[in-house]
Amino acid sequence: MNSVDFPRVDGGRLMERIETLGRVGMKADGSCCRLALSDEDKLGRDLVVSWMRELGLEVRIDKVGNIIGLRKGIKDLPPVMTGSHIDTVGTGGKFDGNLGVLAGLELVHTLNDAGVETDRPLAVAVFTDEEGARFQPDMLGSLVYAGGMGVEEALAVRGIDGKLFGEELARIGYAGTMEPGTLVPSAFVELHIEQGPVLDQAGESVAAVHNLQGISWQEVTVSGKANHAGTTPMSMRHDAGYGAARTICFARELALELGGTQVATVGSMRFEPNLVNVIPRQATFTVDLRNTDEATLKEAESRLAAFLHMLAEEQGLETSSRRLARFEPVEFDRKVVSIIEESAAAMGHKCRRITSGAGQDAQMLARICPTAMIFVPSVGGISHNPTELTRPEHVELGANVLLGTMLRLSKA
Amino acid sequence: MNSVDFPRVDGGRLMERIETLGRVGMKADGSCCRLALSDEDKLGRDLVVSWMRELGLEVRIDKVGNIIGLRKGIKDLPPVMTGSHIDTVGTGGKFDGNLGVLAGLELVHTLNDAGVETDRPLAVAVFTDEEGARFQPDMLGSLVYAGGMGVEEALAVRGIDGKLFGEELARIGYAGTMEPGTLVPSAFVELHIEQGPVLDQAGESVAAVHNLQGISWQEVTVSGKANHAGTTPMSMRHDAGYGAARTICFARELALELGGTQVATVGSMRFEPNLVNVIPRQATFTVDLRNTDEATLKEAESRLAAFLHMLAEEQGLETSSRRLARFEPVEFDRKVVSIIEESAAAMGHKCRRITSGAGQDAQMLARICPTAMIFVPSVGGISHNPTELTRPEHVELGANVLLGTMLRLSKA
Repeated sequence: MNSVDFPRVDGGRLMERIETLGRVGMKADGSCCRLALSDEDKLGRDLVVSWMRELGLEVRIDKVGNIIGLRKGIKDLPPVMTGSHIDTVGTGGKFDGNLGVLAGLELVHTLNDAGVETDRPLAVAVFTDEEGARFQPDMLGSLVYAGGMGVEEALAVRGIDGKLFGEELARIGYAGTMEPGTLVPSAFVELHIEQGPVLDQAGESVAAVHNLQGISWQEVTVSGKANHAGTTPMSMRHDAGYGAARTICFARELALELGGTQVATVGSMRFEPNLVNVIPRQATFTVDLRNTDEATLKEAESRLAAFLHMLAEEQGLETSSRRLARFEPVEFDRKVVSIIEESAAAMGHKCRRITSGAGQDAQMLARICPTAMIFVPSVGGISHNPTELTRPEHVELGANVLLGTMLRLSKA
Repeated sequence: MNSVDFPRVDGGRLMERIETLGRVGMKADGSCCRLALSDEDKLGRDLVVSWMRELGLEVRIDKVGNIIGLRKGIKDLPPVMTGSHIDTVGTGGKFDGNLGVLAGLELVHTLNDAGVETDRPLAVAVFTDEEGARFQPDMLGSLVYAGGMGVEEALAVRGIDGKLFGEELARIGYAGTMEPGTLVPSAFVELHIEQGPVLDQAGESVAAVHNLQGISWQEVTVSGKANHAGTTPMSMRHDAGYGAARTICFARELALELGGTQVATVGSMRFEPNLVNVIPRQATFTVDLRNTDEATLKEAESRLAAFLHMLAEEQGLETSSRRLARFEPVEFDRKVVSIIEESAAAMGHKCRRITSGAGQDAQMLARICPTAMIFVPSVGGISHNPTELTRPEHVELGANVLLGTMLRLSKA
């Protein structure tokens, strides 16, 4: 296939779908809030499913709410799959996840219009709860799809609002009947925004993602003694909030010292009793550690544990931690990475190899089939924020590279 | 008056009233939760008012809900007043505040039983919202009583739950008609638990409070940029949570460096969006600074402000702060302090002079009449905690010293 007979997506049409989906759950500050299995998530799903049906896709929904739109192939073979997620964090942008799903629909639209049939069926997937902002772990839907978590276990997950995953899934009408993982693809390719600054700063337009950072999430609880803020001398305090603050500072220093791809984030914090004139009795917070190197990630975890032990001794506190999620670093499939590079080259674009710092549905699919990802730039590296932006020309380019890659992978 | 003809309180009866009131709003962990103007506060008030009426006191309620129980004197003179508060923090003990109110009722009970009349009337006051845990500033009721805040301003205060002080006051039926400050006492004496470790550690039983720390409360907001926790390099972050953590560590170091009576507490904290995989966009927290020396307290405030400015520059954050409460240190009346010492000596007790680290209703009354306080020990210095404890013998001793002091002050 050369660049001449290569059908091209309609970038404007794709941007229109991105804007339309972005308005579902939009808040006053322009951010998207479609937490997994919320009313807003349901509206987003309904919209995407209606588009799938308009495009003639056969829609299947599995027991954890993953949605798969299938386009028939010439041959009865396992499909080539693309897709991503449409749930967002509480203050999400309109490109994260959505781009991968809607580029999948756009390439189907393009192939339909051009009358192109493929040897293998094509599948566009919408995985449930990638963000993990409401139900943990993150990437829950694709994890279950890849067999990494049982359906019953997933349905019993309790969200930050106390609600059960299974009940919320049924409530929004997306508790399907298909067994997750029924359709094992011959390959999986996910288009996603970088959500980091590398491509934007380098002035590059597209990248092939060859590996992905390991992720360690834990919830740490520091317990001290509630006491009067005015009458308790500094030397006699067991201040859980101070313990939390020291841990935040330590996590940052640790990440800087380990260097490389190591990052550390304390994103969530709760003090008890949380009153101005009471020394905090307890502080509960999350620590998110990531590295592409499993050994270094383990070192970060063990040094954090040692710090918490030292802190407890020093301040007369108790510390404990509970694992929320843990995924090892992933190496994507070399052949799929090469096909992405070939597809970009066919369009005249240089395509660097890059690491994903974020967890992705693709890392779960990599457990069951050859997998890789395509990244397009995020302006300023900003994501999980209403100002998240990927320029229309990069959206279009990413979708065209995805189309070229899917067409190459669909040959039997 | 010598120790022989000195009537004595019934310590057991006083402890019973403390236990009975302590069960109102008691939570599963044994703590008291009677936030100002809550349903639980109403029940506590109803109980105290019923006791006042049983003791023959004339009950007056002012426009901000302060309750005053009056016992007639032989002469028509301004009363000698005692009292405290019965509202609690979210996890309060049963002695803080309650002791001062119920010791006042106990001494009335004792004088009634002994048929003792006093020259001046005696008054037992219950001041509204001393803790400030729901409606800020703290000591709101006594502040208004002493003319430091207008009634209208107080009624318009909005609580941490968004409710209006005036509406909540009316809802629980304690919006009285008396103008606050109508009864200006000839003197005010408040019995209170120390809420700190000094007396307990020294093995002493009672103290005369001769001064009180100045209090500075502010709410600090640190604003940064929400971004993806996995893909944003450490060097490119503007992490509001990290800014908050640095401030907590700085506040502690500052207090230790200034030494003396300086304390600093960050008791309340809120992250936004407060999600595990999003760098905090904003952190909002309170800083409570206290010192007996106004110049040092001002230095602490200005050094905190300078730190926040430096932090903003260093981390690419924005910081702002809003004053929640500010009270200068207070020197209590020397003559009243001497009378407390004399009353303790008459009972054979040494009585050291001590500083109050906590804000107290007495500091407001000190604006309008000669005032001092009596402290009894808190076991382990613990307060604002379900394990808050003052031993029955110290409760009884404190009430007897209060009785002796009130009798001395009531002579015309």
